[in-house]
Amino acid sequence: MIDSHPYLVGLIGAGVLPSLTPPMHMAEARSLGLTYVYRPLDLPTLGIDPERIGDVLAWAERLGYDAVNVTHPCKQSVLAHLDRIDPVAAALGAVNTVLFTPAGRVGYNTDTTGFAAAFAEGLPDAATDRVVQLGAGGAGSAVADALLRSGTAHLTVVDLDAQRAGALVGDLAARHPSAVVAAAAPVDLAAVLGRADGLVHCTPVGMAEHPGLPLDADLLRPDLWVADIVYRPLDTELLIAARERGCRTLSGGRMAVHQAVDAFALITGTRPDPDRMSAHFLDLVAAGDVLAR
Amino acid sequence: MIDSHPYLVGLIGAGVLPSLTPPMHMAEARSLGLTYVYRPLDLPTLGIDPERIGDVLAWAERLGYDAVNVTHPCKQSVLAHLDRIDPVAAALGAVNTVLFTPAGRVGYNTDTTGFAAAFAEGLPDAATDRVVQLGAGGAGSAVADALLRSGTAHLTVVDLDAQRAGALVGDLAARHPSAVVAAAAPVDLAAVLGRADGLVHCTPVGMAEHPGLPLDADLLRPDLWVADIVYRPLDTELLIAARERGCRTLSGGRMAVHQAVDAFALITGTRPDPDRMSAHFLDLVAAGDVLAR
Repeated sequence: MIDSHPYLVGLIGAGVLPSLTPPMHMAEARSLGLTYVYRPLDLPTLGIDPERIGDVLAWAERLGYDAVNVTHPCKQSVLAHLDRIDPVAAALGAVNTVLFTPAGRVGYNTDTTGFAAAFAEGLPDAATDRVVQLGAGGAGSAVADALLRSGTAHLTVVDLDAQRAGALVGDLAARHPSAVVAAAAPVDLAAVLGRADGLVHCTPVGMAEHPGLPLDADLLRPDLWVADIVYRPLDTELLIAARERGCRTLSGGRMAVHQAVDAFALITGTRPDPDRMSAHFLDLVAAGDVLAR
Repeated sequence: MIDSHPYLVGLIGAGVLPSLTPPMHMAEARSLGLTYVYRPLDLPTLGIDPERIGDVLAWAERLGYDAVNVTHPCKQSVLAHLDRIDPVAAALGAVNTVLFTPAGRVGYNTDTTGFAAAFAEGLPDAATDRVVQLGAGGAGSAVADALLRSGTAHLTVVDLDAQRAGALVGDLAARHPSAVVAAAAPVDLAAVLGRADGLVHCTPVGMAEHPGLPLDADLLRPDLWVADIVYRPLDTELLIAARERGCRTLSGGRMAVHQAVDAFALITGTRPDPDRMSAHFLDLVAAGDVLAR
């Protein structure tokens, strides 16, 4: 008769209603025999100003939530409302997972651990001496940190916004003093890619709403690996072009799965099955593609 | 892959942490294959003044709750924060179930419908011409309404607090003009019970924390039915004494089960199995008795 703890989890942010993270968690919990409700809490829909993230956290905690995932635009602002922050997340200055524990609120970042796990799984033994990253936004920041923790020696960040690229590079260099981190302008992409082992794409280009290629496909060559963090569609124009030219590729789906794998493990104390979560994820994407038609 | 709606429900009140209602709902949902998290939200533990029930409701709604049960001390005060109130609950002036619907918040009272169902099930064909009720508090109010809606022609309410008994009788008489409703002092209990078909007990006497008998056992006679709303323990001293004297009895457990049956049906739109919920309930009570030893 005695049940295991029934879990209550939320996803706080803007535009979270179509997120696949809630159904991914719930499907995995069902496979594990856990009772698990995961609610998307879309701040614009609820008419809640993102500046009230502290109120949202306080009420979620009072109303029995075990944990929340946090996404844009609250990944940075949430830090002020936590009692303890995991060192990886603290270094990054961004939290995407908050546990409500008897000892207080604890923040983690499974975007960065999730990318690292996805990279190790999807591109094992990939050379990481020199990597070029397109995009210096929030996702780019988490990915760059994962790359540098995973052994990348030279990281070049390219963004249309030179100031944003420069700021990220400054932060990364301070946190990873043994690595060489530099910013480059889009006009220099051909030159920096010519010397690179791999390319990571962290801009919205290629998403269903922003179709296209983020760079000239002729810059891709067979000995370059290419990772995309866009996962809708799973097969972005960039990944298709890269495979056509013989590149090894890593889809954004793996990062989406592994950020959820890591969050689920933190929330439940149970390591989920990454292959099963990945299969759930692919089913959900396929179902979404059917619905979108 | 497509899951049925995962339910999130709460129980708002003071002293709700040991309530069996949350595990009863969750066990039934599990039997029905539904994902269902039911959280006790104990206002004193949370440091929330019961006067802030409106805030609690607003945040529960925002944070994805489908419904809440409401208990002492908020069953009356909650009415001001609802958009629509079921006529039975409105007449009673007390709500124990709130649904958050796209069309607004709707209040119901399944204490009164639950007692009526329990009575019909546990004491079928019991004579209800003359009934004596001990206790004029909140639970007594819901039970008296159920008795009068179920055909009781003469209801006598006995309470140590003559003013409280008088106020309840006034309300009941106004709502049920075809019935005869009267108040009586404890000193007159022998006289009114002598003419009665049945006795309903609605005070805390007999609960584990308030052991004892609420009246002289010699007043019980074989042709009197006796209903108790206390359900911890299930076998109260009153029910034991009544059975020893040959009375038909109704335990408070049936009301506890049927208020949950009715609330579950309102929340999910699925009629649960009352026998299975009753079996769950008895298991929970037995487990609680073991734990309490």
